[in-house]
Amino acid sequence: MALSEFSLIQQYFSSLGNAPGVVLGVGDDCAVLTVPEGEQLVATVDTLVSGVHFPVDASAGDIAHRALRVNLSDIAAMGAKPCWFTLALTLPEARESWLHEFSLALADDASMFGCALVGGDTTAGPLSISIQMVGTVPAGKALTRGGAQAGDSIYVTGSLGEGAAALCLFDESGESVAIDNDDARECLLQRFYRPEPRLQYGLKLRELSSAALDISDGLIADLGHIADSSGLGADVELNRLPIAPWLAALVEPPRVLAWALSGGDDYELCFTVPEENLPAVELLIKRGELSASCIGKMSEQHGVRCIDNNGQLVETSTTGYQHF
Amino acid sequence: MALSEFSLIQQYFSSLGNAPGVVLGVGDDCAVLTVPEGEQLVATVDTLVSGVHFPVDASAGDIAHRALRVNLSDIAAMGAKPCWFTLALTLPEARESWLHEFSLALADDASMFGCALVGGDTTAGPLSISIQMVGTVPAGKALTRGGAQAGDSIYVTGSLGEGAAALCLFDESGESVAIDNDDARECLLQRFYRPEPRLQYGLKLRELSSAALDISDGLIADLGHIADSSGLGADVELNRLPIAPWLAALVEPPRVLAWALSGGDDYELCFTVPEENLPAVELLIKRGELSASCIGKMSEQHGVRCIDNNGQLVETSTTGYQHF
Repeated sequence: MALSEFSLIQQYFSSLGNAPGVVLGVGDDCAVLTVPEGEQLVATVDTLVSGVHFPVDASAGDIAHRALRVNLSDIAAMGAKPCWFTLALTLPEARESWLHEFSLALADDASMFGCALVGGDTTAGPLSISIQMVGTVPAGKALTRGGAQAGDSIYVTGSLGEGAAALCLFDESGESVAIDNDDARECLLQRFYRPEPRLQYGLKLRELSSAALDISDGLIADLGHIADSSGLGADVELNRLPIAPWLAALVEPPRVLAWALSGGDDYELCFTVPEENLPAVELLIKRGELSASCIGKMSEQHGVRCIDNNGQLVETSTTGYQHF
Repeated sequence: MALSEFSLIQQYFSSLGNAPGVVLGVGDDCAVLTVPEGEQLVATVDTLVSGVHFPVDASAGDIAHRALRVNLSDIAAMGAKPCWFTLALTLPEARESWLHEFSLALADDASMFGCALVGGDTTAGPLSISIQMVGTVPAGKALTRGGAQAGDSIYVTGSLGEGAAALCLFDESGESVAIDNDDARECLLQRFYRPEPRLQYGLKLRELSSAALDISDGLIADLGHIADSSGLGADVELNRLPIAPWLAALVEPPRVLAWALSGGDDYELCFTVPEENLPAVELLIKRGELSASCIGKMSEQHGVRCIDNNGQLVETSTTGYQHF
């Protein structure tokens, strides 16, 4: 089958382009977009390469979900609303069944999260998906990494370690821990392929949080980015890390701790809260409008430190996921 | 060498981020950007894969120039000004000399064309470069493919066929024509790796042209897109095609004609002009402010037809570059 780029984009992706502000979608040299008055843009890009960021036998639908959601997670971390994305799709061959499944999954998530595909490029080559996502945020309100103050409380949303645990399922070297529990495997696969972009949390935290990011490289590494950007350090209390009981039951505690601290791929938000906003954040948590746990405090002393039950400093690896 | 993604982006790419409207550049989850009042956005994405879109032995600098310029060409075709771009760079290994050369070339062109790098993702994998470019245009003024009327004159900028001729230099099968002239080889390589994005022409044509696009897939295929989008057809007079004399001297006439009509990779603009704007366009050409040639007219009769010196219809291939 030889599908030209033009008919391929028309056939599979032109229906994903409806959203407010899209004056002209896929099919011209560029999309034309209207930005709401008083809003700034936020922009991010993430690439997934077959065999590097997902197993070579991953389904087209799973790949689509993950590719879109890791970008949405960056938008969430800025306290922004997703609007438009472009897709650069590199494929070994234009197989119709693959494209059909991929575009349906992408359309599902685009519709669920309220963003439109406005541009695409398909090329022949080793399978790789690059999505560039643009969102909007009221001018001056974007949540950055650099606004934390010493004494601010550090929170993370949801639970940690599942993203890293999921990677064990794909490790064929046999060096990773074996996960035999079928329910756990299913949960971890879901967590890996459909990470939940914390968009609603980001919007709520925009007025309450002093700094935020999403945890993609591991808590220690990513919290280190907040600390560095804010000219500060951080103290993390290990016994306050949110780890799901079912995950803790799977393996030995040191392994779970390593997953939670430096495994990466969790796509939860890590954010800091000034003392005056703590009541509001705790109220959101109490009401069930925000799932988040306080895990420590920002400090004047540079570096990220981990502290155990007895208040003792614990030596941990400080490097997150290394891309090379 | 193991460079983390974070330090890699910081080291090589953070200096490319200065431009108006960039509130926050590379280094956070997203860039934060301010859109000038009264402007709309245009957005496009293009991916180059090693061995598909450029030879595997292409230099890092050449790859950077081409990757940025093919995107700038799309911005030019909309009559827009380039503003910001993101870079998704997939590399087999993070070789410092390669990254150094790549980032310098990218910085050169970004500075020359007035756009800033605002986001990046580096991943390990087969060499591939995906750039997503955003530009601005006064609201309602974007030049699309769909506005042509029957009777409008068809123009192309610069000269045609050199992009396709350059591909012969990379064909190791020996089936292509051999180009032995060193000056010609140098010109063609320049044309391939540093296509000139027609940004100034796009801005001038915004008020004069009824439809426009850039020629990436070949004149016939791309003019077909204007015709289809406008619900029309087009008649092209072959003897009016702008072909550089030095190119015509290289090979037999049918080969040059095929390059010009369906070779692609020229990145010139093809645009249509209503009769009332012809004097203004011709004046720009006469003054040397626009290099463009009239090659035919839009017509009610669907399809793209080529006509020879004697007014006879000529059979030509109507398919442009096929990506699969």
